[in-house]
Amino acid sequence: MIDVMLLGTGAMVPLPGRWLSSALVRVGSALVLLDCGEGTQIAMRERHWGFRRLDAVCLSHLHADHVAGLPGLLHTVANAGKTSPLLVYGPEGTIEMLRAVRVLAQYLPFDVVVRELSGGDTVAGPDGLAISVAEGEHRIPVLAYRLDHPRGRRFDPERAEALEVPRDRWSVLQRGDAVVVEGREITPESVLGEERPGVALGFATDTRPCDTIRELVTGVDLLISEGTYARDDEVDRARARGHMTFREAATQARDARVGHLWLTHFSAAMEHPESWRANAAEVFPAVTIGYAGLSGTLAFDSGYRPFAGNAMCDGDGGRSAEVGG
Amino acid sequence: MIDVMLLGTGAMVPLPGRWLSSALVRVGSALVLLDCGEGTQIAMRERHWGFRRLDAVCLSHLHADHVAGLPGLLHTVANAGKTSPLLVYGPEGTIEMLRAVRVLAQYLPFDVVVRELSGGDTVAGPDGLAISVAEGEHRIPVLAYRLDHPRGRRFDPERAEALEVPRDRWSVLQRGDAVVVEGREITPESVLGEERPGVALGFATDTRPCDTIRELVTGVDLLISEGTYARDDEVDRARARGHMTFREAATQARDARVGHLWLTHFSAAMEHPESWRANAAEVFPAVTIGYAGLSGTLAFDSGYRPFAGNAMCDGDGGRSAEVGG
Repeated sequence: MIDVMLLGTGAMVPLPGRWLSSALVRVGSALVLLDCGEGTQIAMRERHWGFRRLDAVCLSHLHADHVAGLPGLLHTVANAGKTSPLLVYGPEGTIEMLRAVRVLAQYLPFDVVVRELSGGDTVAGPDGLAISVAEGEHRIPVLAYRLDHPRGRRFDPERAEALEVPRDRWSVLQRGDAVVVEGREITPESVLGEERPGVALGFATDTRPCDTIRELVTGVDLLISEGTYARDDEVDRARARGHMTFREAATQARDARVGHLWLTHFSAAMEHPESWRANAAEVFPAVTIGYAGLSGTLAFDSGYRPFAGNAMCDGDGGRSAEVGG
Repeated sequence: MIDVMLLGTGAMVPLPGRWLSSALVRVGSALVLLDCGEGTQIAMRERHWGFRRLDAVCLSHLHADHVAGLPGLLHTVANAGKTSPLLVYGPEGTIEMLRAVRVLAQYLPFDVVVRELSGGDTVAGPDGLAISVAEGEHRIPVLAYRLDHPRGRRFDPERAEALEVPRDRWSVLQRGDAVVVEGREITPESVLGEERPGVALGFATDTRPCDTIRELVTGVDLLISEGTYARDDEVDRARARGHMTFREAATQARDARVGHLWLTHFSAAMEHPESWRANAAEVFPAVTIGYAGLSGTLAFDSGYRPFAGNAMCDGDGGRSAEVGG
């Protein structure tokens, strides 16, 4: 199961009332942050998911509006008491960029481990999460992310009881390890049923639509995608600057057969993103125009469902909702 | 004449509703920024004094909460169309820090000129401003600043007319240069009267009270001073961490015979700074507890006076006033 929340929806420059685009993911008790522009730590504080359990940061690319919040965030995570290593993933150049960040955030009580990824890579994230990336098309190297949270195989308690496995050993078998009961080895195979699908989240920003990303995010329960430009007649600008229109993002979501789509990363010139929803919904109806605080769950049985509290904010474009007191 | 405004009043960490401590100064059409933590550019945008004419940034010290907003600010100033050099002043280490900032803000259409200052230095700022510094007492090197805006000597139009100087040459004499009229050299001395006092602003944050700072800011029209801790019984903590209580800041202001005092840089644990005003006012009555947007003018004839709009905000501690929409 994955919980996910948008922390902001802005592009290029943080505005009063619109934090820069980033998303927070909670899996088990661990947090994963997707991009970290200036002010992201303030947006995180408003949302109360905590700082100490931030275990990984995934960076789409190294433009300042996606990374310049790192020095302050690292300090705040340190003040929250984190001591375990923080993993930072990003494209080529991330190691050098983190070296600069560490000039501004020198004394941290935890290690910052940086790993530069290339398209096709998959790495193990916290709580069994698999983090995969594809290369997008922007003015500089950019990565799209897919976070897969696998579900364990079904456990058959009747077979476990028939085999006289004590209940306090069941979790070992559920993990996939064998147990020995009174000299008999009980294998996981003997009590585990069929494979079951997990849940998956996609995150694609600051990129044109492209085959590599479509392939990466195929079938995810929720895709968070940039929609930098709302209007169809801005497609030339989107092409020139390596972004997408609402309609292009929706088309890519439809072609990748994702469950649901959240749009974010709105141009500073776009005042009311919600008013352009039809440009996306005509192509892909299961779309929500993002706002800070938009959140939902990817549940093993039911897939994507929005948090109950969202309805009261949905539809206002979120400008006033983004900067709470 | 100097206009000055507080952009935020927070210490250590930017909070929802409380930007980090920094101040903006307007002299002529030029802007000078005093410190730049994460989010300072958002606070600047809320206040509408513009970005393009930012000509200098004065950094008190290199802790992240005073400098981590620079990468984003530099981008935003670039987007506003600035092409002339930006001067950055700060203590030892500022050159290395700016090198790191430039990894995050690589492509700028203007030069960033960094100058490291030591106690006793005075440099020429924009529009005739003289920028002087003293070293404070903190856990790392810290500078307090004094900004002097000199006033020209009185110009005597009757003497200029008697000397038959054409009116379109008067400004040359007012600047202090000689003019030649029909073969006669007219010196400034012949038309300029007595020296007149200018106005001065002091800025001291993240420091204990100390002789060097008291000497630097003696007689300024307005002193912006940290008051990290409100309560008198926090004085040991203030000493240990290199900060001041309200009462200590007020005592230093009184001893330096400043015209008016603004307190800022409030600990995140201090929820209602205004409610502790008496701790400062008992020592130095001409004190205002800062909030984002607090602004005033240092006028040549009348010294410090608050902007008219301040009254409606003054007294509420400013938490709600700081994050406008």
